[in-house]
Amino acid sequence: MHGAGDVRVEHVPDPKIDRAGDAVVRVLRSCVCGSDLWPYGAMAASEHGRRMGHEFLGVVEDTGADVSGFKPGDVVVAPFIWADNTCDFCRAGLQPSCRHGGQWGLNGVDGGQGEAVRVPFADGTLVKLPVGEDSALLPSLLTLSDVFCTGHHGVVTGGVKPGLSVTVIGDGAVGLSAVLAARRLGAEQIILLGRHTDRTDLGREFGATDVVAERGEEGVTKVRELTGGDGTHTVVECVGTDQSMRTALRVVRDGGAVSRLGVPQYSEIPFGMDTIMRNITVTGGVAPARAYIEELLPDILEGKVEPGRVFDRTIGLDDVPDGYRAMADREAIKVLVQP
Amino acid sequence: MHGAGDVRVEHVPDPKIDRAGDAVVRVLRSCVCGSDLWPYGAMAASEHGRRMGHEFLGVVEDTGADVSGFKPGDVVVAPFIWADNTCDFCRAGLQPSCRHGGQWGLNGVDGGQGEAVRVPFADGTLVKLPVGEDSALLPSLLTLSDVFCTGHHGVVTGGVKPGLSVTVIGDGAVGLSAVLAARRLGAEQIILLGRHTDRTDLGREFGATDVVAERGEEGVTKVRELTGGDGTHTVVECVGTDQSMRTALRVVRDGGAVSRLGVPQYSEIPFGMDTIMRNITVTGGVAPARAYIEELLPDILEGKVEPGRVFDRTIGLDDVPDGYRAMADREAIKVLVQP
Repeated sequence: MHGAGDVRVEHVPDPKIDRAGDAVVRVLRSCVCGSDLWPYGAMAASEHGRRMGHEFLGVVEDTGADVSGFKPGDVVVAPFIWADNTCDFCRAGLQPSCRHGGQWGLNGVDGGQGEAVRVPFADGTLVKLPVGEDSALLPSLLTLSDVFCTGHHGVVTGGVKPGLSVTVIGDGAVGLSAVLAARRLGAEQIILLGRHTDRTDLGREFGATDVVAERGEEGVTKVRELTGGDGTHTVVECVGTDQSMRTALRVVRDGGAVSRLGVPQYSEIPFGMDTIMRNITVTGGVAPARAYIEELLPDILEGKVEPGRVFDRTIGLDDVPDGYRAMADREAIKVLVQP
Repeated sequence: MHGAGDVRVEHVPDPKIDRAGDAVVRVLRSCVCGSDLWPYGAMAASEHGRRMGHEFLGVVEDTGADVSGFKPGDVVVAPFIWADNTCDFCRAGLQPSCRHGGQWGLNGVDGGQGEAVRVPFADGTLVKLPVGEDSALLPSLLTLSDVFCTGHHGVVTGGVKPGLSVTVIGDGAVGLSAVLAARRLGAEQIILLGRHTDRTDLGREFGATDVVAERGEEGVTKVRELTGGDGTHTVVECVGTDQSMRTALRVVRDGGAVSRLGVPQYSEIPFGMDTIMRNITVTGGVAPARAYIEELLPDILEGKVEPGRVFDRTIGLDDVPDGYRAMADREAIKVLVQP
């Protein structure tokens, strides 16, 4: 990406092992993330640009001398943050705060929207997938890289439990994934706030019991009506605007939690006396996808959940610029890239 | 209280049973709360004033026809919110949100800083204490009404566990109680931020492993130094100012929680991208004291904790105005009232 609206497909040197813990992975599938749309909308022009893509799965092609868990030919998925998975933060399940980890596409590490990636700390970062290169499950398995784990993070940190209620704000891929994750954990009432019917229809199939198209004050009123006036135990906020955050704080039930998954476009939240009296918690954040993959993988392999249904368009590498455009224009929920 | 700085001791009608669920309790001990100091500092002048005091223990003198759990002569403690203790919020341990509860001193209910109180929903509100009227434990038992339960709420919602670290911001009675509660739950490192040495000395006796007198930027640096640069797993914020909340968010470790106990003097908190990347949770609120009393009571009866040490002055009813002044002037940590 060279600036707002300026995505180019360019040739770069082939990745190769740089450190003994590296692996080189040939990308089978990657995708465009809703968070990629923020720089797509606002990034300052840059001469050298930056590598994009932080969600991918692929085949191990080469490994460094210290890599013991993988060998060429293994099909693997990479979480959207690479990490050693051995430091104290990682052991506590907080890989985004890994003492030695980092982001794809920065500091000499490749992005996932490409043909191949050098993976630092391969033993810590990657998870082996027991499928072949042509598995029909690849789209759903790719969501373990970010979006399904992110939705899961929202409902886990928000305290979703069997029988409880949850509001999901936002009908993008993260919101839809949060609906699916909430259903998976047994939420009884799942209210999805969104106004794109193609998306909210998928949300209903994923488990939403109610859909609210209204926003702001009207949306708050509607959620309150649907919950006997009380709001829901959990709110998963998947948009990140000031308005969506204010809505979240008003539709959460006393003693409940707002979990934040959206990239915040605000710097402050209204969080004074009212929220103290009501014992409101605000939680969430950047998901430790790596910590959740082993737990979520079996349900995908067994076909219990199909998070890959958020992909409603598949493109090749040459069409990635148009993939960004399609997502920015809300033509596509989430674009799958098949190099 | 008739306005800022204007506390008067006046005669009011004796409380009597109004509803079948009421009890009348003769007050043995009550006290002044740090939260009482906010109206003491800023309340608009009022002709009729308002009854004060929300922390008391005493002896049941009379009960309504529906009261089954108490009889005259029982020594009881009242949490700082009265509640039916049967509604869905109460059953979930969130009595401050009770569907039928309320605050002492409002809407025809007496305040605790007086000779006697009519207690609504006596069966739900009161907890029997297995001690006599002259027990030496009364000061510590009185803290079950608010301050010790409030400190406990901060450490519980903030996720304090054996071996973890906690910063407590504020050396008032709530902060000191939070230190004691954190120690009780096994916190390994307890950093107390406060600059009144008489208070922080008591904090050390309650279990603080480190005391930081610096505020703002210097305080943040000091806590970071004491924690290998990482901050603590939990921060219990017991002050409520914008500055203390900003400090809290900067000394909490990635993945950690800031629990708010202070009465917020701010309406917003800085809670943007940095806190998302670091997975910071903000939690806490008005403590459900009623939900904690049974758990905390045995440790007081057995002498394992002495939360009543926060009381460093005892006065009679006539001296209550001076008790407010002494607390506002930081002459006393917390004033015990013995009618």
